[in-house]
Order: sequence, then structure tokens, then C-alpha cells
Amino acid sequence: MNLGILTGGGDCPGLNAVIRAVVQRVHQAGFSTLGILEGWKGLIQDATLPLTPDRTDGLIGQGGTILGSSRTNPFKDADRDLPRLLENLKRHRLDGLIVVGGDDTLGVAHRLKRDHDVAVVGVPKTIDNDLNVTEFTFGFDTAVNIVMEAIDRLRTTAESHRRVMVVETMGRQTGWIAAFAGIAVGADYILVPEVPADLDHCCDVLTRRRAQGKHHGIVVVSEGVQLLHSGLISQYDELDSFGHPRPTGIGPLIARIIEDLTNIETRAVILGHLQRGGAPTASDRILATRMGLAAADLALHHHFGRLVALHQGRIVDVPLDQSVTEIRKLDPSYYEAASAFFR
Amino acid sequence: MNLGILTGGGDCPGLNAVIRAVVQRVHQAGFSTLGILEGWKGLIQDATLPLTPDRTDGLIGQGGTILGSSRTNPFKDADRDLPRLLENLKRHRLDGLIVVGGDDTLGVAHRLKRDHDVAVVGVPKTIDNDLNVTEFTFGFDTAVNIVMEAIDRLRTTAESHRRVMVVETMGRQTGWIAAFAGIAVGADYILVPEVPADLDHCCDVLTRRRAQGKHHGIVVVSEGVQLLHSGLISQYDELDSFGHPRPTGIGPLIARIIEDLTNIETRAVILGHLQRGGAPTASDRILATRMGLAAADLALHHHFGRLVALHQGRIVDVPLDQSVTEIRKLDPSYYEAASAFFR
Amino acid sequence: MNLGILTGGGDCPGLNAVIRAVVQRVHQAGFSTLGILEGWKGLIQDATLPLTPDRTDGLIGQGGTILGSSRTNPFKDADRDLPRLLENLKRHRLDGLIVVGGDDTLGVAHRLKRDHDVAVVGVPKTIDNDLNVTEFTFGFDTAVNIVMEAIDRLRTTAESHRRVMVVETMGRQTGWIAAFAGIAVGADYILVPEVPADLDHCCDVLTRRRAQGKHHGIVVVSEGVQLLHSGLISQYDELDSFGHPRPTGIGPLIARIIEDLTNIETRAVILGHLQRGGAPTASDRILATRMGLAAADLALHHHFGRLVALHQGRIVDVPLDQSVTEIRKLDPSYYEAASAFFR
Amino acid sequence: MNLGILTGGGDCPGLNAVIRAVVQRVHQAGFSTLGILEGWKGLIQDATLPLTPDRTDGLIGQGGTILGSSRTNPFKDADRDLPRLLENLKRHRLDGLIVVGGDDTLGVAHRLKRDHDVAVVGVPKTIDNDLNVTEFTFGFDTAVNIVMEAIDRLRTTAESHRRVMVVETMGRQTGWIAAFAGIAVGADYILVPEVPADLDHCCDVLTRRRAQGKHHGIVVVSEGVQLLHSGLISQYDELDSFGHPRPTGIGPLIARIIEDLTNIETRAVILGHLQRGGAPTASDRILATRMGLAAADLALHHHFGRLVALHQGRIVDVPLDQSVTEIRKLDPSYYEAASAFFR
Repeated sequence: MNLGILTGGGDCPGLNAVIRAVVQRVHQAGFSTLGILEGWKGLIQDATLPLTPDRTDGLIGQGGTILGSSRTNPFKDADRDLPRLLENLKRHRLDGLIVVGGDDTLGVAHRLKRDHDVAVVGVPKTIDNDLNVTEFTFGFDTAVNIVMEAIDRLRTTAESHRRVMVVETMGRQTGWIAAFAGIAVGADYILVPEVPADLDHCCDVLTRRRAQGKHHGIVVVSEGVQLLHSGLISQYDELDSFGHPRPTGIGPLIARIIEDLTNIETRAVILGHLQRGGAPTASDRILATRMGLAAADLALHHHFGRLVALHQGRIVDVPLDQSVTEIRKLDPSYYEAASAFFR
Repeated sequence: MNLGILTGGGDCPGLNAVIRAVVQRVHQAGFSTLGILEGWKGLIQDATLPLTPDRTDGLIGQGGTILGSSRTNPFKDADRDLPRLLENLKRHRLDGLIVVGGDDTLGVAHRLKRDHDVAVVGVPKTIDNDLNVTEFTFGFDTAVNIVMEAIDRLRTTAESHRRVMVVETMGRQTGWIAAFAGIAVGADYILVPEVPADLDHCCDVLTRRRAQGKHHGIVVVSEGVQLLHSGLISQYDELDSFGHPRPTGIGPLIARIIEDLTNIETRAVILGHLQRGGAPTASDRILATRMGLAAADLALHHHFGRLVALHQGRIVDVPLDQSVTEIRKLDPSYYEAASAFFR
Repeated sequence: MNLGILTGGGDCPGLNAVIRAVVQRVHQAGFSTLGILEGWKGLIQDATLPLTPDRTDGLIGQGGTILGSSRTNPFKDADRDLPRLLENLKRHRLDGLIVVGGDDTLGVAHRLKRDHDVAVVGVPKTIDNDLNVTEFTFGFDTAVNIVMEAIDRLRTTAESHRRVMVVETMGRQTGWIAAFAGIAVGADYILVPEVPADLDHCCDVLTRRRAQGKHHGIVVVSEGVQLLHSGLISQYDELDSFGHPRPTGIGPLIARIIEDLTNIETRAVILGHLQRGGAPTASDRILATRMGLAAADLALHHHFGRLVALHQGRIVDVPLDQSVTEIRKLDPSYYEAASAFFR
Repeated sequence: MNLGILTGGGDCPGLNAVIRAVVQRVHQAGFSTLGILEGWKGLIQDATLPLTPDRTDGLIGQGGTILGSSRTNPFKDADRDLPRLLENLKRHRLDGLIVVGGDDTLGVAHRLKRDHDVAVVGVPKTIDNDLNVTEFTFGFDTAVNIVMEAIDRLRTTAESHRRVMVVETMGRQTGWIAAFAGIAVGADYILVPEVPADLDHCCDVLTRRRAQGKHHGIVVVSEGVQLLHSGLISQYDELDSFGHPRPTGIGPLIARIIEDLTNIETRAVILGHLQRGGAPTASDRILATRMGLAAADLALHHHFGRLVALHQGRIVDVPLDQSVTEIRKLDPSYYEAASAFFR
């Protein structure tokens, strides 16, 4: 039996731990694993890397993916790319393919299985933790801890200068990272896409706390937050014509608005790519390892068309279908826990 | 309504986060929280500290407990201590007591409730993660990450000197910390109390890997591991009479045995108190905050005699009864995941 | 004898360690220290905080300054502010003032001494390490380590996506942080204000390395780097008129140019305020402590008008004169060490 | 020109950075570097690894040494080993040898040069920072930061339990690590080999501070501290005969004595191998890189018989002679800075 493995989409701590676990389990069963480079691109262009336990053993603590990743979608230029992809699958006599990715990569896996009968097993991956098919994704815990440690640093400067610090985190559609990191740092306010942004309330909280003697503030903002296009916001568009550049990014824009409304000096930091690199936390290494072992077991037992997932703390498998593209919103109980401290 | 809070037993990252959450929730409800110093000792000796949100707001990221802790048990010298404890509860007009602790501290809380009708709410706490009443305890994730980071450091030295490194972790009765940290670092072997220690297999694995070209090894050992008193082990007792001191601690003893059996240079490190101090991880700060809020809600609604717990990812409450002293063994699926790499 | 202490200018890890050391030494001599809040502002507005060893003992590991800081300059509106400042000095019967700050804050200290006979002792402070009066400043080592750890994280993502990552560090006039961090991470290229930016060479290096099989790149850029206004750069201004916003910040601009010139996907990260907050490194805690003790000794011996400094590894004192505003450029030997790896 | 490089003695963060720098500089000059495995052992047994910039480029952040290390001394069994060593030098046509090591390894290098005319360049290495030939050694800053971070963790537990925590650091002959880390954590007392251990004073300080309201204490102890064999200490030997095991290690012994003398609960932690592994700090990476480049330059210019060193912040070269085995005691000014806080 020959198995292939590829990693697609944005970088995520834990990818190498999945690869290591798959290679180990497949090897124990007496088979070998072929690494496919840069996601679907490697399968189209036939770029591969044979994987052995010796090569992958030391990878568990390394961020990123030794296979490389890309956002290439073989259905985009299907006439050209799809035949090559299917041919390469045959050429390497791959009996199955383990696909580690987010909604895009897994969506491709699902179509390949449904329309072209490709034997796939999916492993969900995103630092945003916003896939509906699983309770938690590896990479998320690492991202939250990185944001937390960054804010623990930024706080001392906020205190020294009696400033408000607005920290923009990843999370285009959901507020998982912002809410978890916000709770963990004891943020004064958190803005997430799932809750309509109430900047007036945010500013009230910051002003009130200052009056109570707390001279700095931390506001955590998910990059996907939408500001209602009220008169307030449109004003910041107009400013442009007077030569003041509109701030780039939602975090800096919110910082400017807070400063104007509260008269408290406010700064913004965009954490950006820092959130998706580097060594995974223990929790993410363990989750990635468990998912990798389970995915290999599915493939070794010819249970294709399945996706490994975390349900109530257990690794289970569910059908790999269109549900892989469904978004899971932030569980409101976390936002409630956070908002208990917006006082 | 007046509520008291105390923290008992061994130090644990997240205690301050619980205190902060309780104080905040109680304050929002219009009431105040009295801190009791050094666990049950403070209630016997009437040593208290009034707590306000201002005082506790910045605590979420701090390890330890501002209330102090002790292992004092009022039932040990009950004739002397119990009356004073009950009197101090009255003197401060405490309508309820939030007790944060492990099996000992919560066992006392249970007896006080059962036999003396004290209104208590329990919050489970242990870095060992071995309480049967809850899925996970705060402090555990931090301990696992500390062990992981320590071993990530130790590994480079093991590699440079081509040694086996034996790392002894906490876990007197269970192997949670050893197993989780062991998976996270990709340990070559893990010894936990739940699985009979098979040093021959361990040495086989280490020897085989060396033959395959991996010149160092990491063995993670729970402090509670029992070595069967075989001829092998008794030999190490006898050594003493020849003037060689028997190694102190199970980790160093296992290191000596491994070195003798494999002829590979082997060293031991006992991580000790390092595992229970310092800033909590994000996950522990969040769990402690959720538990603190839930405990305060129970008390504010006069639901005494309850214990907050994590079940399937949700905070729930269960009866505070003798089950608080039950030990939860390591879930075998984790040991299986770990042992997939003992090759 | 009464001594005052204030901290001015941008936040910097180690300020609290200086305060702690001064308070301790002054206390040992039988005197007391008055903290002045928010730099010169607190002396103008009479905002103070009495300091004791008990209050400051635990501060050595905390970033920021418990005294707060500001960029207020009493000579800006001298008619109004200077008399108040001098009056407050008298009111508190301050026999001397220890001033911890960068070129601006120390420049004010120098003028107060020269023109108004104020008894001052200066302690140099800047994360940028660009003061000519001292070899190294506390805060710098911390900043370099923060940048290094951030890039160690960013590197894995650069590898996974085969990208160039441009990291913009602090350093408006000098390249100390960029060069030190760049050496420490093994950067492929480093751009500092002291060396004319040669983007063609930078792109050559990146292209050549890719041809040699290294598929990612790290470029560290000091915020103070100037791009010569060649035809190339002006093109990026013109782009604006076509609706493409010109990137904000030198890092993102350089990233765009590199991507255009090399055809390698390139991303930028601006580390910003992260670099000046949080717990200081051991080296900065020690340097700050030594400088604080030395500054207190000078004041206690009535050696005013002096500045403590590091010369050849020793703490010395030098005259507090206009030289405190002189900038020290990056020692070229460091840039040479870095450029040995631009291949 | 062919150059060899080996690393000997105890593991030390920065060794890989030296190797990387040497390989890069030699490659730029058009020559190649041969890695010799496990110190002098590899030269006796002819175990080598060809090194290229591609292979070593990513090493700067990795602890340990890819060449491995050992304490093998070819002069121990000179009749057997020395001829093989000299023969292997010839076989590989090595024009020179870069030797990275501590007093033992460099002592061998010196004898090989003096007695056998081997062309060597030395690079000093020890985490203990106790070589007289150089101001600072790489690895030391990392060790100090590791100890500091460990104590920052241990402190919270000391506070929670109102304990004294005794932390034993490396430093068999000198107190560099203990003194630097002790200053950095604000230790209540520090014991180093250079200063006669005054446990009575130590206990006085701890008792006095407790009386002042500070309920915990941190004592940092260098492993090389000697306790005078007073009546006090001999008592702890005698205890053995009563069945109480004498504590293993100087740290635990001192902890027991402190507990007995002060009646304060006291615990000990031995940090051990943790101090010499893992990723180097920025400062150590830079120092190691500068030394590696300088050593390669010396070899490339046929300046053999030299040792690179740090003097007044500059990399210089000095004769490689018997002075490499001289110990440098802790600079007393650091102990004075530390003891300013023993109050």
C-alpha cells in the first residue's frame, strides 16, 4: 500500500507533527508514505519527497511544514490541472491520499473524492479554529498563546505611557483567537465579528476605568470585525481628502477612533504572521499527533472519504463532505466570560 | 451577601485567575469577597485579606496565589481547630465559601458541608490532572508546557553527547504530565504508574534506535512509577554497601539502570517545583477564569454543596461529595498515542 | 538628604530595575527617594509617589516603569512650566534628582543643571542603543531578543510558503537592533541607516540563494532606512494614482519592491511596540541594576552633573553635558559580521 | 587549503553558531571545512563529516553541536591515540584545525601545537564564563537567562507557600552564573565559591526580611560552594547514621540547614543540565558568530597557535598557551552589586 500526504493553505503550527505521526504509523504497518510538495501544486507538477521515520522523527517541535504549502486549487484551471493531478496519482500508484488543510484544501479533497473517486482522508487545519467539523484545530492554541505573550509585553508599555493599546489578531470570519487571547490577558474590551461592534460601549468602559484609577487599557480586535458605516466611521474616510491618511487595517482605524472619542492616547499593533509560525504548544503537538495517527489508521483500513475530527475530547471520524467548508462561529459562552470583565 | 475564598494544597498556575474571576463576579452582583489566607489555616487563625476588583484585576497572568496556601487540615486536631474555624466563619458573617483545592482541601470542604452545614462551593485544582470529578484541571497545561520546553532544551545536550536523558516529572499517582509531555517532545519511551514499567523493553527501544543511527534518547518518567522489586532492582540497593550511593529519586535510579543495561551514557534531571510555578498558559488562564465565574454564580444563587467541573468542554456543576477524592487514571488512548513511537 | 527620581521618554525594559536599585541604595544610606510621575510632567504638575524598598523590591523583572513616563519638555513652554518645576523641586526639598532617559530627557537635565543649577545625575536609557555617551544601554538586549524570537517564528512560515519575509525593527537613526537581531537569526540581508540601501544587491542575494535551493528569505530592515529616490522608488509613489495604495512603512514598501524585482512572494511584518515592553533579559536587568546603584552613589556623594555610563564593561561616570544628545552609529564591525552571510 | 573543526567538552549553546560561521568564511575564501565528530575522539577514530554552507546555514539558532562532543583526551593513552590522531590529520591533508572547547580541550590543542607542531586556532567555550583568556564566553548569557526564567517561575511557588527556595546553579569553580542570575532575579542571598559561605548571615537576612513582611526568599547557590566543616555541617553527616539520608548536592544540604536554622520551610531545586541546552540567546549567537568568523580568518591567514578572545568588547587574538587553563574568578564588583540587596 502506498500513501501520499500533502499540506495546503496557510501555515499552521502542528503540520509537521501530523506528517511525523502519519509516516510513523504507515511505516509500522509495513508501508511507505510519499510526501507531496506545496499542497495540490505538487500533485499537479509531480513534485514529491519520500518520507521515512528517520527523516520525520525530529519534526514534532518544528513549526511549519517540511512539505511546503500553497493555495493552488486544481479546479481553478481544471482542464489543464486536473488530468495532470489524476495522472500523477496513478504514476505514483498512490492507494490513498491524506490531505491536511483548511476549508479550501479540504473542499478540493471532497470534490476529488466525489467526482473523481480519489481515495482521500482529511485532517482539518486552521489557526482560526473556525471549522464546523471539529471542536478544536491544532495551531489555534499556539496562536492564542503567541497573542497572549505579545500582549503581556505590550501591557507594560501601555502602563508606562498610560495608553490604550489596540491589538489586531487574525480571524477573518470569527473571533476565536481574539476572544481566547482577550480572556487570557484580561482585556478591557474585545471586538469580534460575531458581536456587533459597539465602539461607544468600548469607549465608555475605557473612560470609566480611567476614572477609577486604571490608567491604561487593552483592546483586542479580530481582523474580521466590521464597523457599521455610521456617520462616525465615514468621517474617517473623509479625513483622507484633507491629507491625513486613513489608517491601514481595522486595528489602527479603531485605535484612531478610540483616541478621538476618549481623548486617551491610543496605539495599535497588528500581530500578523507572528501568529502562525514557530514551535507549537504541547496541546497542539498532541492534537496534531493524535489526528495524524487516526488519519493513517483510516487510510490503512481503507476507510477513505473520511475526515478526522475532535468531538468531546475524542478523536473521531466523520464523512468528508461539503460540511468541511462550513464556518463555526465563536461559542458565545466564551464571549460572555470575557465580557464579565468589561466594566 | 458575603463570600469568602481560600486556596489550599500545592501551588498551581491559575489560582490567581480563579480569585480574580470570583471577585469580579461577586462585585458585579453588588457584594464583596473576603480572601482567607493560607488555606484552612487562615480560617482557623483568622487571617484574611479583603479583595476588590482593583486589587485583583491584574492577577490573571501571575502564577501562584496572592492568598497563600497551606496543607493545614482542620480535622487533624479537630477539637482545637474546628471550633475556631466555625467561629471565624460566623465572625465574618460569611454566607458562603469558595474553596479552591485538590483532593485534600476539597475533602475537608465536603466534610465541613456534610457534618457542619458549611455553605461551600468547590473549584478543583491540581497540576497533576488526576481528579475524577473533572476532565481537566487548570495548571496541568502549564505544567506540560514547562516540561516540554525543558526537554526541548535537554535534547540538544543529549544529542551533542549522544546520551540518553531521563526526565522525571511530577505525578505521584498518575502519568498525565509524563504522558502528555512525552508525546509533545516525541519521547523515545515514557514510564507512567498506570502501565507496569518494562525497563527491558525501554532498553531494547533505546538500543535499537541507536543501531538505526539515532544517537540520543529521551525517556520521560512519572515520579510515581513503581519498579517491580526484581533481582535487577535489589542489586541497586546492595550497591550501597559498596560505597556507591543509591541514586535519589526514581528518575536517577532508572537512569543508572538504563546505563548499566544498554551501555549508553545516561543522565537524569528532576524538574521538581519548576512544574508548578510561573505564568499560566492561555488555556489555563481561560479554564481558571471560567471556573471562577461559574463558582461565583453558584454561590450567588445559593447553590452550595456543588463543585464546578469541566465535562465535554463545558463548565458544569456536580455534587461536592466524597467523589472529590477519587483519582482519575491516565486515559489509555494517550499512552497508546505515545507508544506508537516506541520503536 | 532627599533624592528624587524620574523616568522620561519611550518605554524601555529595565527602568523598574533602575528605580529599585536607586531606592535600595538610598535607603541603605539612611535616606529616602521620592518618585516623580510621568517624567518632567510630574515635576511640573507636582505628581509624586514616595518609594520604599518594600514597594520596589519585586520590580526587577517587570517591564515598564511604575513611575510612568512622558515626553513632556519643560523648556517648550518655559515661561509657564519652568518656574513650577523649580518650585516643586524646592517644595519637596530635593537635594538631587536622578534622571533616567534618552537624549531628550537627558538634554533637559543638562539644561536644568547648566542654566538653573539643578543637582542632577543622569542614567542613559534607550532600546535603540544609540547614545554616544555609553557603550550599551539597558533595554537593547531585550529588544534584540524579542526581534530574534519573532523572526525565529516567522521563519517557519517563510519556509512553508517559500516566501521572503521582511521584518521592520525599531531604530530611527541607527541600525543597532536590526543588525544585532539580523546576525542572531542568520538574516539573508540587513538594511540599516548607516549603510546606503542597495536593494539590487539584496534582490541578487535572494535570487541567488533561491537558485541554490534555499526557498525562503529573511530581510531585516531598520525603520530608519532611507531609500534613494531613484526612478524605481518614485514608481511606487505613482502607483498611488492608479488606485494601489502605497504601502505604509518602510518594511512593507521594501517588501513590495523585492517582490516586484525578484518575483518571489514577499510579506512584511512591523514589530513595533512589541520591542519595548515586557520582562527584561538577565543582561538588561543586571546593567540597569548596576547603573542604578552607581547613580545613587554619585548622588549620595554629592557628585552631581554626572552621567553613569558603560565603558569597556565597567560602570563609570562622565560629565552630563551636551554630549548626551549625540548619536552613536552602529559599530561597522557588526555590519561586517552580518554581511559575511549575504551570499 | 583544508581546515578541520571540532567541538569538545560539555555542551554549550552557541557551538553550532561557531561552526556555521567558520564554514561560511572558509567557503567564501574558496576552501572547504571538514567537521570532526565528537571532539578529539573523532580525530583518533577518523570520524568526520564534510561541512558546507548549505548544511550549516540554518544552525545559528540550534543549541548543541552537530559535530557531537566528548571529553576524550588523546594524551591520556598517548602511546595508542596520539599517533592515530596525527596520522588522521595527515590523511585528510588538514592544513589547520579550529578547536572549540574549554580548558581541557584547549589544553590538548596547546600541547598538540607545542609538542607536535599541529596548526591550531582555539575558540574558548564554557557556559561557566570562567576562562581567564577572554572576558565573556558564549553560552554563559543563555545559561544565566535559563536560570533567571526558572527562578521567576519558582518564585511564585515560594510566595504561595511562604517558603525559601534554594536554587543550585552550575559553576564548579566560580560563581559567575549564580551571581549574574542572582542579581537578575533579585535574590535575597547568593553563595559563590569566591566568597566564604556565611550561612549565619544568610539566615539572618532571611529571618529579618520575614519580620519585615516578606514571606518568601530566594537563595542562589553555585554548585562549587564549599561549606566550612564546622560543627554545624558535620551534624548533617551524622544524621545519616540515624537513618535520615544526607541530602544529595550542595543546594539541598544548604536548604536543610536553612530550614533548621530559621524554622522557615525551605525547598531546593537543582537546575542541572537545563542550563547548557537549547537555543542560544541573541547575545550568545552574535558572540559565537563573531568568534567563528575571527577564528576562520586566523586560519585562512595561517596565523596558527592563536586563540580568539573578547577583550573590552572587541574580538582579538591572543597566544594559545598554557594560560588557556587558567580560571577567571567572578569579578567582585558583580558580587558587590548583588550583595547591596542582602538586607
